[in-house]
Formats: sequence, C-alpha cells, structure tokens
Amino acid sequence: MPNLRLALCQIDPWVGDLARNSEEVLRWSKRAAGSGADLIAFPEMVLTGYPVEDLAFRGSFVEGSRAALVDLAAKLRAEGLGDTPVVVGYLGRGEPGTRYAGKPQNCAAVLRGGEVVTRFAKHFLPNYGVFDEYRYFVPGDQLTVLRLHGVDVALAICEDIWQEGGRVAATGQAGAGLLLSINGSPYERDKDDVRLELVRRRAAEAGCPLVYLNMVGAQDELVFDGESMVVTEDGELLLRGPQFEEALLVVDLDLPAAKEDGLPDGTVLADGLKLTRVDLGGAPKERAEPLEPQVGERLDDEAEVYAALVEGTRAYVRKNGARSVLIGLSGGIDSALVAAIAVDAIGAEHVYGVSMPSRYSSQHSRDDAAELARRTGLHFRTVSIAPMFDAYVGATELTGLAEENLQSRLRGTLLMANSNQEGQLVLAPGNKSELAVGYSTLYGDSVGAYGPIKDVYKTLVFKLARWRNAAAEARGEVPPIPENTISKPPSAELRPDQVDTDSLPDYDLLDAVLTRYVEGDEGRDAIVAAGFPAEVVDRVVRLVDTAEYKRRQYPPGPKVSPKNFGRDRRLPITNRWRQG
Amino acid sequence: MPNLRLALCQIDPWVGDLARNSEEVLRWSKRAAGSGADLIAFPEMVLTGYPVEDLAFRGSFVEGSRAALVDLAAKLRAEGLGDTPVVVGYLGRGEPGTRYAGKPQNCAAVLRGGEVVTRFAKHFLPNYGVFDEYRYFVPGDQLTVLRLHGVDVALAICEDIWQEGGRVAATGQAGAGLLLSINGSPYERDKDDVRLELVRRRAAEAGCPLVYLNMVGAQDELVFDGESMVVTEDGELLLRGPQFEEALLVVDLDLPAAKEDGLPDGTVLADGLKLTRVDLGGAPKERAEPLEPQVGERLDDEAEVYAALVEGTRAYVRKNGARSVLIGLSGGIDSALVAAIAVDAIGAEHVYGVSMPSRYSSQHSRDDAAELARRTGLHFRTVSIAPMFDAYVGATELTGLAEENLQSRLRGTLLMANSNQEGQLVLAPGNKSELAVGYSTLYGDSVGAYGPIKDVYKTLVFKLARWRNAAAEARGEVPPIPENTISKPPSAELRPDQVDTDSLPDYDLLDAVLTRYVEGDEGRDAIVAAGFPAEVVDRVVRLVDTAEYKRRQYPPGPKVSPKNFGRDRRLPITNRWRQG
Repeated sequence: MPNLRLALCQIDPWVGDLARNSEEVLRWSKRAAGSGADLIAFPEMVLTGYPVEDLAFRGSFVEGSRAALVDLAAKLRAEGLGDTPVVVGYLGRGEPGTRYAGKPQNCAAVLRGGEVVTRFAKHFLPNYGVFDEYRYFVPGDQLTVLRLHGVDVALAICEDIWQEGGRVAATGQAGAGLLLSINGSPYERDKDDVRLELVRRRAAEAGCPLVYLNMVGAQDELVFDGESMVVTEDGELLLRGPQFEEALLVVDLDLPAAKEDGLPDGTVLADGLKLTRVDLGGAPKERAEPLEPQVGERLDDEAEVYAALVEGTRAYVRKNGARSVLIGLSGGIDSALVAAIAVDAIGAEHVYGVSMPSRYSSQHSRDDAAELARRTGLHFRTVSIAPMFDAYVGATELTGLAEENLQSRLRGTLLMANSNQEGQLVLAPGNKSELAVGYSTLYGDSVGAYGPIKDVYKTLVFKLARWRNAAAEARGEVPPIPENTISKPPSAELRPDQVDTDSLPDYDLLDAVLTRYVEGDEGRDAIVAAGFPAEVVDRVVRLVDTAEYKRRQYPPGPKVSPKNFGRDRRLPITNRWRQG
Repeated sequence: MPNLRLALCQIDPWVGDLARNSEEVLRWSKRAAGSGADLIAFPEMVLTGYPVEDLAFRGSFVEGSRAALVDLAAKLRAEGLGDTPVVVGYLGRGEPGTRYAGKPQNCAAVLRGGEVVTRFAKHFLPNYGVFDEYRYFVPGDQLTVLRLHGVDVALAICEDIWQEGGRVAATGQAGAGLLLSINGSPYERDKDDVRLELVRRRAAEAGCPLVYLNMVGAQDELVFDGESMVVTEDGELLLRGPQFEEALLVVDLDLPAAKEDGLPDGTVLADGLKLTRVDLGGAPKERAEPLEPQVGERLDDEAEVYAALVEGTRAYVRKNGARSVLIGLSGGIDSALVAAIAVDAIGAEHVYGVSMPSRYSSQHSRDDAAELARRTGLHFRTVSIAPMFDAYVGATELTGLAEENLQSRLRGTLLMANSNQEGQLVLAPGNKSELAVGYSTLYGDSVGAYGPIKDVYKTLVFKLARWRNAAAEARGEVPPIPENTISKPPSAELRPDQVDTDSLPDYDLLDAVLTRYVEGDEGRDAIVAAGFPAEVVDRVVRLVDTAEYKRRQYPPGPKVSPKNFGRDRRLPITNRWRQG
C-alpha cells in the first residue's frame, strides 16, 4: 500500500490577527516540511482564528482573510515550501455564479506551488450550543478529493463529521483512502470520549482512516483542547496529540491506492455534494521504516479541567494585551483557586492579590489569604474597607442585605480603582453554583474582565483545589492552597458568623439539582421524581430563574461544562415561567 | 363577493406566563366575538410570549404550552365562544411520525368548538439580527387553508412573509382569497415603511389581501410596535392599527368566493409545502353596511422612537415585578431623558432620582437636576459622594482616570445600595454613542437593570429631549427637561472644566461615523472614502473595537436601531482585527 506522511499542525490562532496567524502557518509549515511531510494541515479557520462571530459581516475582514490566503500561498513558495500541499482554514465567500455568491463561508483551501489550488466550504453548519453558524455562513456543496502520491484524500471541516451523512457518506461513495477533517472543536468535560467514539463511527462509515485535527488555545469563553487523532476504519487509534498544547504531529499512514476507475469529477454524492477531484500528482511512496505511532496519554479528569481553566485564563490575558491580573483574596477557596490558576497561567510575578477585610472578616481568613500569597509567591497587600464602609453608612441608612452587598461593592470598586491605576486585569472569583442561584453581588464580587471558574460548580472547585495541591506534592513542590482554605466551611463573611449553608443547601445537593436543571434542562417535576426534596428543588429552580439578570452582566469565563452560562444558555431575563 | 369580518387582537403577551396569556386570549376573544367577528386572530406565540429563547428546550414548558392550548379551546367553548374560530400562536412540537417529531416548533392553532381543529408551524425560521430560530425550532411543511363562510383563508407566521417563495407563493398556487399572517415583529426605526412595502409586495405575490397582525409590548431588549395592517393585492391599505398600544381591530373584507375546483388537499406546493385544507363551514355572508376601514395615523419619527423607549421601560419594570425605579441625576441630558421616559412609563410617583455631587460637580448641574425633579414631580434627594471619595483616596493613591472612574463607581455603589435597601430598579443612563466608544465607567454610570437609551445615539438624545419638551408645550404642560440641560455642552464632570469634546469628536461627526461602522459594518477605508477624516475614523474604530468588554456587561435596553448592542451584534471581545 502507498504511504502518506501527514503533518498535523495543532496550533493556536488569534482571532482577527491575520498577519500573526499567517506567520504562524508559515513557521509551522517549515517545521512540518522539515519532517518530510507529504501533506501539511492546519485547523479550521486558522488564518482568522475561530470563532470570528459578527466579524464575518465585516466585508473588509473577509477580504483581508482572502488576501492573506493568497499572500500566504506566495510566501510558502518563496520560503521553498511550494512542493508540499498545505491545507489551511480561512474565512471566504461563496463563489461567483453560485447561489451563495459573495456570502461569508467557513472555508479551507489547499495551497501549493504559490497558488490556491482548490477551496471548499464547510457543509454542515452547527447552530446549537455555543454555535451560530447559520447566522454567519452559507454551506459548501462539494466533496473535495485530493489525489496525492497515489492516494485519494477527502476533506472535511469540523461539523461535517458531527452530523450523519454529508461528507462522511460521500467519502465512502467516492472510495477515498483517507478522510481529513480540520476542526475548531471547543473543550468540554468528557467530550474527548465522545469525540473518539464519533471519529471511530465516522471512520467506519467513510470506510477509511479518519484524521481529526483540532485547534488549541482559547478565545473568549471557548477553550480548544487539541487532542488531534487518527483512527482507522476498524477503530484503531493510531495517533493522539497532547491536550491544550501546540504540537506538530507527524504520522505515516499506509493507505489503499486510489482506484483509476473511481467515480468521475462532478458526480453528485450524498446530500447533493458534488465530487471535486484535484490531482496533486506524485508517485506512490513506500516507507520501509514508517514512524512509530504516537498515542499520547490523556489527562485525568481534574487535571484536564484545571488545564482548560489555565489555558482559558492565559489566552484571555495574553490575547487582550494585559500583562498582569488582580484578584481580591478573601481567604476562601474560590479566590484561592482562581489565584492558583492565574499563577499557573501567567506566573506569580504577574499576579497581584489584595486582601480587603471588613469588620466581619475573620482572622483566619486574613491569615489564609496571606498564606496563599506566601505559598504561591504572588504580590500581596491588604487594604481595609472599614473607612469606606463607615463613610457610606454615615451618608445612608443601610441594613441587612444592602449592608452585606455594600461591603462586596466597596471591594469591587477598590479592585477596579487599582486596575485602572496599575493596568491590571481583574479576575472574578465566582463559581457556577453561586452564579446559578445568584449568590453573588452584582458590581461586587462579580467585577472583573474574566471569571476563570464561572463554569465550575462548587463541589468541583473543592476537587480541583485538592487535585492541584496533590499535584504539587507529587512534584515535590509547595501546595499552593492553604489546607485551612479547603477544610473550613465556605462563608461570604458579610455578617457575623455567616456560612453559605445559612442561605443555600449543602453544595453536594445543590450541585446535583443544578446539574439537572441547568445542564439537563429537566423540569421541576422530573427532578423531584428523581428523588430530590421538593422544597429544595422549588427553591433552587426559583433562585436560578430569578438570577438571570445578574448572570447577563457577569464577565466571560472558560466553558468546561456541557452548558455554560454564556453563549450556551440563552434565557430571557423577563421570564414569568414558574414550574408548579 | 362574500364578506368576512376579522377581529385582530393586537395584544401584549408576557413571556412564560401561560396562565395570564390564556386569560388574555379569552378576555380579548370575548370582546372580539362581541363585535360579530367571523374569525379572531392573535399574534405569534401569544400563549407563551415571544421570544422564549432557550425555554424552548425546557420540555416541561413545551408541554405546559400544549396543555394550555387544549385548555384554552375548552374554556373558549365554556364561555360561549365555541362557534368562532380563533387563531392562536403557541409553542408546540413536531407531530409524531414526521421527521421533526417531538422537536420544538413555533406554532399556530385554530381553536373552535372546544377543540384544536388544526395546527401548523412556521415555515421560514429567521436566524439573523436578534433572531436564533434555527437554534430553537424545526420548520413546518404545510400550507393550511381554512374554508370559512365560503372564503379560503391561508395562514402564515411572521418570517413566512419576509422571505421569497414559501407560503406566500403557495397561497397564490392554492388560489386562497386571503392570507393571514400572525407576527412578533420587533420595532426598529423606519421599519414600518419597510413592512408596508413588504406586505404590499407579498399581497401582490399571493394574489389576495394580506392581513398582518403584530404583537405589542416589549420583552427584554425587543419592543413590539403593533401597527397591524390589511393591504389588498393592489396595494391599498385598508386598515392600520395603532403603534405601541393594545387594540382590537375589526375589519370587514369582501373576498373572492372559494373555488370548488381548487387544488385538492395534499397537493405539494412551492417549497414542498403540502396543502392542508380545513373546512370550517358556514354560509357565505354579504354585508350591506360593512364597517368603515380604520387607517390610523402613524407617529412622527421622534414620537415613535420615544414611545418605543417608554414601552420598553414600562414592560421591563412591570413584567419583572418592580414597582419603582431609581436614577442617578447628574443634571446632564442623558439622565434627564431617562427620567422623563421613566416618568412617562410608570408615573412620577414611582420614579426616584438622586443627585450625587462630587467636588467637580458644577452648581448648574445640581440646580438642573433639582429643576428636572421639580418639573416632573419625581422623588428627589441629594447625597454627596465627597466623604466616600475621601475615604478611598485616603486608603489608596489614585490619579487621573482611576480617580475619575472612582467617582462614577462610588455613585454606582450608592445607587445599588439604595436599590437593595428600597427595592427600586436602577436605570442606567448610557447612550449608544458612549457605549460604542467606551466613554463610560464599568460598574459606575453603567450600573442598572435596564438602559432605556442604550440604543440611542447622542444626537438623537438631543432631538428626543427637544421633542418631548415641545410635545409637553403643545399640550399646555410643563416641559420636563430644563432648557439648560439641553443647551449646555455635555460633560461627565469627573475633573475640573471637563467636557465630552475633550475626549471625543463632536457628536454629529461621531454619530455619523458610528452609524456607518456599527450599523453598516462598513470598514475603515470605506468610511474614510465617504469623506470622513481619517484620524477621526481610525480613533473611533479603535475605540469601538476595544470597548466590547464593557458593552458585554451593560444591562439590556430597548432596541430601536437596525443593530443594537445586544443580540443584534455579536463580536468577540478578544479581537485583534485592526483595519489599516
């Protein structure tokens, strides 16, 4: 069987930065060519970054992307890389003369010899969850099959392999020897299991090995976890790339020789896709000593989620041009975990913590915050909010919740003042359980540019803190999070002797109900029927429904669950639906 | 020609409140039946309110909607209204045994005799602008034609008449005598001209009169302006309902008699729509003295925009269960206009204003705020932020922008403390020009549950203030907004002698550039080519691009422009695209 050497460039594009992304494609293409690759591939929309959202409607941006593609083809040749075909995702337009002429498309092109040899657009457009691709794009209607060194390689983009039929079925009809799919598939917990099973099924349906190349990095609320893979039609995993890391993955594949009597160019296949054959030439190759398959180990559950939070935070800070972050350190577990994530993301020297005690702050909280700073090495100082509190209380007559919220808002204002003064980006410490039930103060503990753990339930916050400490111990390092921060009962400390369980159910119970209601969209009756106490369910459902206005003003943060509070979940604020 | 008397119930449903909406349909149906109507119609998704967004994924809500529909049919009969068919929009599911079985649909049903006689789903699903209907719904695939008193009435839902072909074309093929479309079409400035032309074109294409029934009221960022109409196939406007007001519109239409040799039930029409004939019986009627056509006058441009802002604010406050609102009154035009809107929306007795002077507040600003309160009758008091400011400055070392923002945030914190203490809903005074360029303080002047003028450019703010005063004068009332508030140069008063034009271009120029960049999605080069100064365009484009994070945390407010900062415009925060 002829052999193809593929170089999969699992890289991190920056949305909007056409010049940088082009340079990166060039740089990685050089490395890939150095490995002797026959075909080099990059992720979905690598030239523009992904997702571009309404930038797709900016005509100048679409033209910028198209021009960058042509320019890139020329640069590849100028750098002596003209011989090897390079598959590159970009933002394009429907071809003139077609029904979609001029409209934005999620495209990929094959570059070779200084030219754009062929181009095609994503066929299936996802419009669920975080995706709005019917809003932005019109679909492609062809199946592109490259003939290269005697092998037929069919091409697809991301959603093309998530739905039944389409290019997967067409690949089988066309009798291609390989299906290459380039992706921008966001991370969520346990999704890699789903992906592996999906890729196995699609490889079987296509009747040939499937190469799944994913992007890494993060963009606003999405994290891309990489973990590119190659799976045979029999389900064998031949390659698995690292998670959350850029990587050049080179793999040698023995593939069936292209049939000379295959379906001709122009044949209409499944879902109306038109077969578009592109002959790139090259004699079939045999490799006596193919590369050893690299099947990387996957991270454990907590390690994986933690890595996603770190990557999301790093990318947000870096790509938005900030150099340092500021975190209010209460001594509690949420801000401690956020600080640990920030330190891992950008280094302790760029992380600033401030303790802002009030009259209700316990000594152990102040000590725990200082201890966290000592363990991690982040910059630390203390500013009491007592004088500001007294000034407000002198000017107004506040009691109860208003007084509690005031303390939180004084801290928020102090953080933002420091942020303005010193150019630090504030990180918000809220977790998903709090956000769900509205157990947070708008413009108080919710201030910030980014919320690293906003999609992490409190029970998982505890697990991640323990995991991070254990990981440090295993490496012979100081665990970042003080043990007392993990073991003490959670409290907002906004009034004397307050603990979270004064207002909320135990977190185990709360998170179980929230998972069903938020992620599962289960109704109140179904949750009660599953064995949860009716009064708890009623209260939780009510709290979630009425806190929508708070969530809408919360900063973005990395999605790690199947349904985050962000693009994934779009509920009306004004909503009178109450389940009886 | 036989005559049909139609009763169009242009009403305001509340999202999620199935019980209330059902009661409203019943109440308006009684009024409609009292007018002798042969057919009664309600807007799109009147039972659930519109748009329901991700509530469509809550199975219990879909079932609640379906059950409410069946219950409503029985109640209509129980109230003696069983004879008259009633067309009602609701949230349903794809029929068992079809490809869309069980999936949410944007439906309408015809109720009569205590039964759901027939049902159908919207065929074309909008997925642009503020709409995400591919996310929520699966399409309907039939054209329902009711035979009633010898006339064939074809039915459609909203987007069905906004796109070419589909039910409009099918109505022509079926030879129906009338096309009735029920809508939930959000307001935007000048859209009524667009709608009238659209309805005229579609009536001509359908070859019969078109009845366009729209909803009124508001839901989060959308305002529904009503202005239901009836247009003949020759383009004659036979009826136009009021804007922004609930109304029962009764119209007598002479319509062609149904052909006995028309296409049979089951015929496949345009776009694959299956003709579904429903015979509701009844002898053809002649009316010797039909009702006079009512063609209402439309509001002038400023009156219309102002009415939309009032309706949006009223609906948000009421539907979210608040009784009063709180506004920080600076003496400037933005907060003055917001106060005037609030007073018109919910009455001065429910509007609280607070002046929060700092050391940089001019005497005229304090006087103008007090004068506004005097003119409108809203509750007013003054709380100086000087003590809080001194407390912060004592604890930190702030200068420049940090000091300016601090003043704004101290005011925000004071407003929120009062809101918590007294249960008032805070209104944010930001206008669209400010939001666009980020000329506002996050967690400062941006705090609030709702931003009544967030989609209004500053130049339009001035026009609306002048218009509102003139309207008061025309009615012999006191103009609400002090003349000095309108005539003085805009200033944030966060440092000595500051005016907006220190930081921003003149608003005429700024708003002209913003309209092209934000609403028009024109690129930098195109705007410069249109004659705007390059340095201004570069600065404005840059400011808009880098303020996305602020807008993302801004409260919702009523959409009045073709593209609001909300569901309409979805740009990445992390965005390195800079146009050269």
